[in-house]
Amino acid sequence: MTAPNAITPYDQLAQHQRELSALGNAAGILSWDRETMMPKGAADGRAEQLATLSAVMHRMATDSKVGDLIANAANQNGLNEWQRRNVALIKRSFEKQQALPESLVTRISRAESESLLKWEAAKEANDWTVWLPAFTELLAASRDANTIIGEKFGLTPYDAALDGFEMGNRLATIQPMFAELEAFLRDLLPKAMEHQAKARVDGDLSGNYPADKQKELCLQVMQALGFDANRGRLDVSVHPFCGGADGDVRITTRYRTDEFAPALFGLVHETGHALYELSRPAEYAFQPVGGALGMMVHESQSLLMEMQVGQSIEFLTWVTPLITAVFPALAGRISPALVRQELCAVNPSLIRVDADEVTYPLHIILRTEIESQLMNGTMAAKDARDAWMSGMQRLLGVTPPDDKKGILQDVHWPSAALGYFPCYTQGAILAAQLFQAALQAHPSIRSEIGQGKFTTLTTWLRDNIHSQGSLYEASQLIQRATGQPLSLEPYKSHLRARYLGE
Amino acid sequence: MTAPNAITPYDQLAQHQRELSALGNAAGILSWDRETMMPKGAADGRAEQLATLSAVMHRMATDSKVGDLIANAANQNGLNEWQRRNVALIKRSFEKQQALPESLVTRISRAESESLLKWEAAKEANDWTVWLPAFTELLAASRDANTIIGEKFGLTPYDAALDGFEMGNRLATIQPMFAELEAFLRDLLPKAMEHQAKARVDGDLSGNYPADKQKELCLQVMQALGFDANRGRLDVSVHPFCGGADGDVRITTRYRTDEFAPALFGLVHETGHALYELSRPAEYAFQPVGGALGMMVHESQSLLMEMQVGQSIEFLTWVTPLITAVFPALAGRISPALVRQELCAVNPSLIRVDADEVTYPLHIILRTEIESQLMNGTMAAKDARDAWMSGMQRLLGVTPPDDKKGILQDVHWPSAALGYFPCYTQGAILAAQLFQAALQAHPSIRSEIGQGKFTTLTTWLRDNIHSQGSLYEASQLIQRATGQPLSLEPYKSHLRARYLGE
Repeated sequence: MTAPNAITPYDQLAQHQRELSALGNAAGILSWDRETMMPKGAADGRAEQLATLSAVMHRMATDSKVGDLIANAANQNGLNEWQRRNVALIKRSFEKQQALPESLVTRISRAESESLLKWEAAKEANDWTVWLPAFTELLAASRDANTIIGEKFGLTPYDAALDGFEMGNRLATIQPMFAELEAFLRDLLPKAMEHQAKARVDGDLSGNYPADKQKELCLQVMQALGFDANRGRLDVSVHPFCGGADGDVRITTRYRTDEFAPALFGLVHETGHALYELSRPAEYAFQPVGGALGMMVHESQSLLMEMQVGQSIEFLTWVTPLITAVFPALAGRISPALVRQELCAVNPSLIRVDADEVTYPLHIILRTEIESQLMNGTMAAKDARDAWMSGMQRLLGVTPPDDKKGILQDVHWPSAALGYFPCYTQGAILAAQLFQAALQAHPSIRSEIGQGKFTTLTTWLRDNIHSQGSLYEASQLIQRATGQPLSLEPYKSHLRARYLGE
Repeated sequence: MTAPNAITPYDQLAQHQRELSALGNAAGILSWDRETMMPKGAADGRAEQLATLSAVMHRMATDSKVGDLIANAANQNGLNEWQRRNVALIKRSFEKQQALPESLVTRISRAESESLLKWEAAKEANDWTVWLPAFTELLAASRDANTIIGEKFGLTPYDAALDGFEMGNRLATIQPMFAELEAFLRDLLPKAMEHQAKARVDGDLSGNYPADKQKELCLQVMQALGFDANRGRLDVSVHPFCGGADGDVRITTRYRTDEFAPALFGLVHETGHALYELSRPAEYAFQPVGGALGMMVHESQSLLMEMQVGQSIEFLTWVTPLITAVFPALAGRISPALVRQELCAVNPSLIRVDADEVTYPLHIILRTEIESQLMNGTMAAKDARDAWMSGMQRLLGVTPPDDKKGILQDVHWPSAALGYFPCYTQGAILAAQLFQAALQAHPSIRSEIGQGKFTTLTTWLRDNIHSQGSLYEASQLIQRATGQPLSLEPYKSHLRARYLGE
């Protein structure tokens, strides 16, 4: 007989997991501090703190006693659905980590440090061959790891890599969707450019926008969207991000003083991430089942806020007077249509992070093509640059003049994050589908946005996405929330409406 | 034969210690963030992160394999003096921690949480009996721990407690010094008050001092004193402190807008702590032997800067024009003598942290009397308040009108930090002795201070104190730096000079 207050095997496992999460949260705050507050001279000490936390977490996560805790918890009767899923998620993560020999983990870590160093040097020299040897080694080590994990779970190496960023994501589902999207966008692109040329609004929004005034405006908009300043902060960093800890979301941005739109709409994007972080089920906080799903779903939340909501004419109609109130010099020359024109200008270009909504997926399609072949061993690292140059010409009609504006532009490959890129565009597709489903459930959402009221929408998102944590894989979650699998149709409708006026 | 690149037993132990220090540093930054940056709603999560770090560190520190690492390292040939001391310090700390049963550690931790809660409630109710039961339990648990440690090292419980804040500190050396100091101060006090009444300068320094201007002034002075803004920060918190991590010193203050002196001279104090933190031997960073000695030595560094340097007429002559430059409204009415008069006004009062330099030690003498008896079992917790009331009357001639202005004013006892208080006054005594020794070695220091030049002094401190880390106990360090044991004479000379003009 179990004593009434005895700790059950599940509770023991959950307590172990809670400690791991607490250490991960500590690392999240320390990483935020590094980018926002830390004096420069403390960088080595901070690296030591973060490396030690990683090492301690890895030791705790792969400790052989954890296998026993998992087995005991899995055999416990009376667990609810969430608890059973939690045990399964912990088990999967444990098996992945246990499958990798310590020597390979160390090899990847070293290869990644070397690759990042050489990537910086290669950008400096504007010559990708400076980075290529380090990338070749990093790719080899990363392929070894994904091959081992893939064999354990019956996946190709690239599917194993995809699975690490969004559980259940597979190349076989991405490829046909991206092929259809590519055809659609190549058809849409010239029409969209023609459409925008005809519908041009005169005026410009350049001016002097002091950072403190921008921050005031951004906080006002973020709080209207539902950002809880009691459980998060807004600060400045060179590379904007949304980080921090569970229940303590640290959003960063940077302010250009000649434009207000990049920070404002960038923060609308980050607020989408933050709402997902702050609305998950408290009962399962610090447990994998209470955590966020992968990067596709996370990006869907930020892109829904940025693209579906933030760039809608209703939102712009609401926000334009707020902008004018903070920057009175804009009175008389700002209009929702003019803001939208600047946000939504379509133009094929070289740099992914600066790309517009129509051409952005073409950047992702190229990277997915290349990285899937690299990881599956059908393309050698040395051939990636040629594939990049010809792919840019084929997909976007532009050819990078140099490596900095080409294959060296993103940090993902230099840090072995192959398998991440597809999530951006899958997230954009999902954002359109979720917004359409929310509108179908609550047609008032559009007019509410026009009045700066977002609760109907955010409540729908909370109920259908945020509160579900990681109880389901993305495919199930999408089916439950929208009644169908991930589909291109809402995204295509959205793009046609916005860029062709259909 | 040992392979050339083999990791020696000492290196293994040092690596273990390095990880512990890195986690301790992580906790330092997280604690700083809690007081300065953290949104209020994240308090529970932060408590979880810090508690988990503590638990992980305790497990790592008391792991039975550490005993083997220590034994192997202690037997290794060819260790230098620093390494041998490092092993000894790790061994002492390990033995202390191992001596305490897990159940007692948990009991103290719970009793401390309860005591702090009830202390807050007692202050609210202005009634110490609200706190007394929790304090009684905390004291009992803490006495048990210090009895165990004391028996292991041949110490009384209170000496074991003192040893935890400054290794080697003993009541038998404190008592005669404090008795002599008490007699001296009781004689000095009326004379000092009479002297200041006669020498009164007219004028006042009240005004409006915006926080951002004060910060500008403070940073300028701190950097002149040698604070390295590349390895530290200055921020605002409700309770000012000097924290952070090795090589990343986080100083906080608060700014009253009606006075500039509290923040400025408070930060001169904290800069003394910071210089000690930032000038220790890099070769032994993250090791106990490279760490700071105890609180007596740490306080000597801050009080040397605040009292010996900052309140000297030379420093005030240098700093007054800087103050006037930032606050031009003071021009014509500020003078070094007037600043000094405000800083050094002697007046017996109820609150330790607000006490002047002459009466401050009497507050410490009272606390030392009471806490030594509490810890050694010759006074019951319930009798502490009566001892406080009568002691205040006897030593300072004032009687607290209530418990908030009496026994409830300090956080030390509610958090079981009995044995800490004597370090403040020992630190003040040591500060005078060190400053005198530095002046004897370099008579130019006084005139240099008058020109805002502090390098001769800080170099002397670095060479004689900071660079020594924890290689010696305080008594040896003091002997080496000044040629004699800790002595009251320089402190008495200092007080007579400053308060009687002798």
